[in-house]
Amino acid sequence: MTYKIAILGASGYTGAELVRLIATHPMMEIVALSGDRKAGMEMAEVYPHLRHMDLPALCKIEDIDFATVDLAFCALPHATSQAVIKELPPTTKVVDLSADFRLRDPGEYEKWYGKPHSAVEIQKEAVYGLTEFYRDEIKSARLVAGTGCNAATGQFILRPLIAAGVIDLDQIILDLKVAVSGAGRSLKEHLLYGELEDNAFGYSIGGKHRHLGEFDQEFSKIAGRDVRIQFTPNLIPATRGILATAYVQGEASAVHYALADAYMNEPFIHVLPFGQAPAMKHVRGSNFCHIGVVEDRIPGRTIVIGTIDNLTKGSSGQAIQNANLMLGLDETMGLMNVPMYP
Amino acid sequence: MTYKIAILGASGYTGAELVRLIATHPMMEIVALSGDRKAGMEMAEVYPHLRHMDLPALCKIEDIDFATVDLAFCALPHATSQAVIKELPPTTKVVDLSADFRLRDPGEYEKWYGKPHSAVEIQKEAVYGLTEFYRDEIKSARLVAGTGCNAATGQFILRPLIAAGVIDLDQIILDLKVAVSGAGRSLKEHLLYGELEDNAFGYSIGGKHRHLGEFDQEFSKIAGRDVRIQFTPNLIPATRGILATAYVQGEASAVHYALADAYMNEPFIHVLPFGQAPAMKHVRGSNFCHIGVVEDRIPGRTIVIGTIDNLTKGSSGQAIQNANLMLGLDETMGLMNVPMYP
Amino acid sequence: MTYKIAILGASGYTGAELVRLIATHPMMEIVALSGDRKAGMEMAEVYPHLRHMDLPALCKIEDIDFATVDLAFCALPHATSQAVIKELPPTTKVVDLSADFRLRDPGEYEKWYGKPHSAVEIQKEAVYGLTEFYRDEIKSARLVAGTGCNAATGQFILRPLIAAGVIDLDQIILDLKVAVSGAGRSLKEHLLYGELEDNAFGYSIGGKHRHLGEFDQEFSKIAGRDVRIQFTPNLIPATRGILATAYVQGEASAVHYALADAYMNEPFIHVLPFGQAPAMKHVRGSNFCHIGVVEDRIPGRTIVIGTIDNLTKGSSGQAIQNANLMLGLDETMGLMNVPMYP
Amino acid sequence: MTYKIAILGASGYTGAELVRLIATHPMMEIVALSGDRKAGMEMAEVYPHLRHMDLPALCKIEDIDFATVDLAFCALPHATSQAVIKELPPTTKVVDLSADFRLRDPGEYEKWYGKPHSAVEIQKEAVYGLTEFYRDEIKSARLVAGTGCNAATGQFILRPLIAAGVIDLDQIILDLKVAVSGAGRSLKEHLLYGELEDNAFGYSIGGKHRHLGEFDQEFSKIAGRDVRIQFTPNLIPATRGILATAYVQGEASAVHYALADAYMNEPFIHVLPFGQAPAMKHVRGSNFCHIGVVEDRIPGRTIVIGTIDNLTKGSSGQAIQNANLMLGLDETMGLMNVPMYP
Repeated sequence: MTYKIAILGASGYTGAELVRLIATHPMMEIVALSGDRKAGMEMAEVYPHLRHMDLPALCKIEDIDFATVDLAFCALPHATSQAVIKELPPTTKVVDLSADFRLRDPGEYEKWYGKPHSAVEIQKEAVYGLTEFYRDEIKSARLVAGTGCNAATGQFILRPLIAAGVIDLDQIILDLKVAVSGAGRSLKEHLLYGELEDNAFGYSIGGKHRHLGEFDQEFSKIAGRDVRIQFTPNLIPATRGILATAYVQGEASAVHYALADAYMNEPFIHVLPFGQAPAMKHVRGSNFCHIGVVEDRIPGRTIVIGTIDNLTKGSSGQAIQNANLMLGLDETMGLMNVPMYP
Repeated sequence: MTYKIAILGASGYTGAELVRLIATHPMMEIVALSGDRKAGMEMAEVYPHLRHMDLPALCKIEDIDFATVDLAFCALPHATSQAVIKELPPTTKVVDLSADFRLRDPGEYEKWYGKPHSAVEIQKEAVYGLTEFYRDEIKSARLVAGTGCNAATGQFILRPLIAAGVIDLDQIILDLKVAVSGAGRSLKEHLLYGELEDNAFGYSIGGKHRHLGEFDQEFSKIAGRDVRIQFTPNLIPATRGILATAYVQGEASAVHYALADAYMNEPFIHVLPFGQAPAMKHVRGSNFCHIGVVEDRIPGRTIVIGTIDNLTKGSSGQAIQNANLMLGLDETMGLMNVPMYP
Repeated sequence: MTYKIAILGASGYTGAELVRLIATHPMMEIVALSGDRKAGMEMAEVYPHLRHMDLPALCKIEDIDFATVDLAFCALPHATSQAVIKELPPTTKVVDLSADFRLRDPGEYEKWYGKPHSAVEIQKEAVYGLTEFYRDEIKSARLVAGTGCNAATGQFILRPLIAAGVIDLDQIILDLKVAVSGAGRSLKEHLLYGELEDNAFGYSIGGKHRHLGEFDQEFSKIAGRDVRIQFTPNLIPATRGILATAYVQGEASAVHYALADAYMNEPFIHVLPFGQAPAMKHVRGSNFCHIGVVEDRIPGRTIVIGTIDNLTKGSSGQAIQNANLMLGLDETMGLMNVPMYP
Repeated sequence: MTYKIAILGASGYTGAELVRLIATHPMMEIVALSGDRKAGMEMAEVYPHLRHMDLPALCKIEDIDFATVDLAFCALPHATSQAVIKELPPTTKVVDLSADFRLRDPGEYEKWYGKPHSAVEIQKEAVYGLTEFYRDEIKSARLVAGTGCNAATGQFILRPLIAAGVIDLDQIILDLKVAVSGAGRSLKEHLLYGELEDNAFGYSIGGKHRHLGEFDQEFSKIAGRDVRIQFTPNLIPATRGILATAYVQGEASAVHYALADAYMNEPFIHVLPFGQAPAMKHVRGSNFCHIGVVEDRIPGRTIVIGTIDNLTKGSSGQAIQNANLMLGLDETMGLMNVPMYP
């Protein structure tokens, strides 16, 4: 017996990544793939690397019989997602990969996404999908809101430090080096090969990036007070991966201990020996997260570096990890594939 | 029950790729990893992307108890490989990834590799490891010689055409675009990032590349006469993959039919609809091969394009496919992972 | 005294490359830059790497006073170019970088570009801009049609061989490895960084590429009979450059002699010593062309490899070289900058 | 009349970059190129992109007649440089590109470079080569010590802020994204294409990078007290360029004013309008530096971003700028070439 899976919005990168991961998942079977503008096309026309698979053709969402679906992954754009999910049968389990249900407070949603939320009732019900920290709620959730990929990376390295009280909450700086697939398959000039090769630049600098909404919500909740961090993502010439560098004020040994302790039994999160730093390519294509802690020459200053693959641990891998829990499966099922190196 | 696997020469790229693929293979277990100069080191020190795995430390070959090993992959450099394999117990099944046992004729070996073969007796016994064409011999073989990665790509697109007699045997041109990992992890100036970015150049041009020994041997055997092709590999700024363009003289429809017919039931080789061409990234990280056939505007001229991942279908994936057969397992076991895209 | 230059269609890559090269040209001064959809914007908004320059703002073509312009570079899209150029004052010298005036025969134009030519009269007058071969006509021309970048590369390596009669005219195969900037700054999915990294694929395979119109016209003219070559361009993950591999049938020594002889006194075209092959990056950013000749192991077969930067020698550099001649300047003026390596 | 130039250590990337820039310099002529291990070779054998140039062959340093040399660029490795320079005729003007003469204090040199300085007397005499800040001393200097490329970038964005007193000196964090050519043409595993593609990682993290010696020396001197910054360089998959992100505590408007004011008349340093950020590729191949200032959402926090090409403004371009001053030439001579984009 396998669980029947639908992927809504399968024609984007996170959709393709879900297909890749589910292909070798022993307990999931894809029964429906939607792609509104591409309805009627075979998935192999959109993604020829899936040519060998026996997949359903892309269809419209309204053509899916949700009575036969155990769980739906929703990989639709922001705003579209809430409109679609509120029309789904209330019994369908959903893992949403958009930003629509990440923020608890409708006011915060409107602040960061520029318009009112249209499904406030189910927004309340959604569980934040950072698996390692919401495991129990996710197990019994109907709707899980996948995190932002930058937001996941930042939280993996900072949550245990805030929880343990080992860093100054008013002096947290997070500088990210991010690969281009986080922006999806969209046609934008700065995503062209000729523009990005030998290039690097910051964007949404100074507190404008929407994932700050997640950081504010989560960090403040852990700390029991308002926490505001500085966060700058930088686009680099790479396809997959996020390397997050956090500059914090706190003793390096306490920082390392807090992380090692928090993740001691986690299958996907690996804290390196003290003083070692991770490399982005070491987790590429996998659901792993590597974290390193290095002491600065200035006493009391510490650098914490974490890395994940944005399409796997940062979105589609995380989504399957959550779906495993929601379906009562082993959390790591189908997710232990090894990073692709080189 | 699982089969006990040793990897000799595990510190190179093909060794790391074997570890990646075996990690999710349901019937193989790695019991020994050798790396002479790195003996004593943990595999995770050499390849931190394997950090989460529970692997034996690197050891010297002489420290492996081959009585407990069901099959050894030999990923050693050319020449070293023959010296090592001739000292292994004659009952140990071996898949060799080097060039040492690919050529039947010791004279040809000496011609292409510049020194006499030192294990001529076992050279006789070795089976050429192009699975799709030597399946039966491989099943009962003790020693299988993995093919060259360029040689595999060229043969996938040309063997059925030579066998079917649909092309002119004296007018075959093979132009390859190859990624850099085919050269291994060796420290050479032209493999540096700064040298290869925005670069492309042919090498071993004009009939000097050693994989021609394999082409000559195999194509002549199929044709029943001497066949000599033109073959030029070109290094391009990419890490994994080979895109092979063959210019042949023969009717495109007959060419396409010969290929489609030959690979109709092959799980890993996919012939595209007539007129379509494959892209290198569509097979990256996988054991698949995509082949396309396009008719030229000049009557009687046809372009055949094939692509594989040099580290997977071109070496370590092929090796596991062969090992599956040698161990009586399903040929595709552990090899159906989906290409990583993007 | 300097010559007053207008660039029509300055917002594309060839426009930007013209600005880059003219910036250090001692006898040219940019007086007008057009960019219809971007009229009113500063060039530095479109191309911030030009920030330090004192350039006119982008304007509409109709706002340029051509009485004050000595020479106009026309870097507009195909079809637009002919519509614009036929309205320019007949005294304005023009170097067109589009495909509109490359083909002598209106029938051929319609065949390759899919619609009738709308400026047949001035099409007759245009001189084909492959400087090394049309030098005298260019000196006195009013309108010069810049060549296709692929067409330029192929002609540099093949014209002298056809002229010298040293190769079989019915057995010419041209395989190109081309960087992405040849496709311009257009928003197309296959030009995205995430799609092209670790990728390579042929396009317009089998005789469909429009530059074949130029090859057919020029090679047939030289040979005095119809010549049809096979031509396949392959996109590779690089930004600038074309590496052209020609497979020809003829004695390598005669081929090398024909090329060395043809280019002996050419400032930009360098024929390497016999047996050496060029690398794409060795000409990047410059107006140089490197050509190598290698003998195949099959007697009578020869590989000729040539490389240029598609944006420089393949379009904007060539355009300035032609403009120098049209203005009575030294042909190399402003074009001797050294390739950028690494 | 031109000045006669020798380049000692011409076979590295900075040597090649000096040749590239001097090639179009109207007042410099290369008369000698040394390369000890490659003595006797032509420069075009080491760097085929220089094939078209008429350059002296590589020689040994002792074979150079310094009586005929007006100025020597010394692009030798650290430690070698001091040994060579102390043997040069005391009348020869020298621009050193190594680290050997950057630090005033021999104790600091030993601390960062691990052994005592062997030319302490001429160390005293050397002028620090950050042109915009040592212009007058450089004009009359005999020996100028080129800065580290990371050190230059960091100083361009931070010096005016420290001088103007607009930021907290104890809260300066500098996160660099650096391209690979800064490491030179050395054969190291992490510099291989296959290792760096899709990768990113910090190195010399936590205060271990040698360029901190320069920051400490210069910033403390400006401030009149000890200043210690946090500095982490991150290698990214790119060939040329440094993008430096400084996190400072001070009013953004005051920060922007201090920078705009400091560089108002500088030909190579461009401060962007308030709120805009630079991109690394916008200065590639040129001697320009772009600087942007963005206000953070947290009051009193500011992000300053600067970018240069490490081989040009960060080393060889800076060296020529300094040589121009030392020879009484216009400071910008030969350095106004436009960045290469795309």
